[in-house]
Amino acid sequence: MLKKEIRVIGIDDAPFKKFAKGKVLVIGTVFRGGTLLDGILSTKVDVDGKDATEKIIGMINKSKFKPQLQCIFLDGIALGGFNIVNVKELNKKTKIPVVVIIRRKPDIAAIKNTLIKIKKKEKIRLLEKAGEVINIGKIYVQLTGISVEKTKEILEIVCTRSLIPEPVRIAHLIASGVVSGESKGRA
Amino acid sequence: MLKKEIRVIGIDDAPFKKFAKGKVLVIGTVFRGGTLLDGILSTKVDVDGKDATEKIIGMINKSKFKPQLQCIFLDGIALGGFNIVNVKELNKKTKIPVVVIIRRKPDIAAIKNTLIKIKKKEKIRLLEKAGEVINIGKIYVQLTGISVEKTKEILEIVCTRSLIPEPVRIAHLIASGVVSGESKGRA
Repeated sequence: MLKKEIRVIGIDDAPFKKFAKGKVLVIGTVFRGGTLLDGILSTKVDVDGKDATEKIIGMINKSKFKPQLQCIFLDGIALGGFNIVNVKELNKKTKIPVVVIIRRKPDIAAIKNTLIKIKKKEKIRLLEKAGEVINIGKIYVQLTGISVEKTKEILEIVCTRSLIPEPVRIAHLIASGVVSGESKGRA
Repeated sequence: MLKKEIRVIGIDDAPFKKFAKGKVLVIGTVFRGGTLLDGILSTKVDVDGKDATEKIIGMINKSKFKPQLQCIFLDGIALGGFNIVNVKELNKKTKIPVVVIIRRKPDIAAIKNTLIKIKKKEKIRLLEKAGEVINIGKIYVQLTGISVEKTKEILEIVCTRSLIPEPVRIAHLIASGVVSGESKGRA
């Protein structure tokens, strides 16, 4: 049995201009369980760049919260457009399980086609590293370093206000509120 | 009796370089009661400038959450150093009660002396507009458009995790986390 106060981090990026050069704000929310926000981390990554994995690893590894973190939730596998996170590397360098949260079943074939079309074929390898898309309840996940059973247990604790983990919902609100002046829509 | 789900906003500024020219990030957190974060607003104000009142009024009045807000909590009366909020004006232009939260009993005489010393004597008038410093429990407040009794009732609902209202604690975490990379200390 997991403690109700398990510490996890939820990560999401801010809105940004598509295909424009630049950086996008990324927010990490450290939660104790599904209601208590303990801390905020932030970094910036290049729009459509390659630095998301390294930036997220750095943000987590230098945080004072690192020793307590038991799970990293990512809101999808990409930050700032096509800046795809290498989840295997993220798991290896932080030694923390990674759960990618996906709201609707993704059309992997369509995504691969887009990557080929925009000449980012090398990113398909990163996509594939995220592993199989698994359905849990009404959402989908990709798991690295964690079992389906343990993921279900954690999701039950942290999905307190919506279908997705509260740390991811709040990371989305913060990132969009800071960049747009007011948070919009659902996480 | 107030509803437990009363909507309030907590406002705090980010860390900034003292006496440097520039702008400082200001975060507003919209809460339902003392635990549910509903939305994030943000704006920027000039360090040691004069635009805090106008910027906060604009941020609140254009928000979709405005019609539900029943109280504005400010973390102290100044944002970005000596950019003092005219709380009377804030209350008048938003038609929402304003509660300034103060952790330790302020030394008003010392603050006035500093303002005179740095040749910002005109700001003393704004300080005085915030009204009498009242002790409630372990904190101090300055009230505009709201009674002591009603303030006590609201504080009981929103001070869920610390001595200060949860919206103010979280606004502080977010503002410092976004600007410094990791939130620090207490709100």
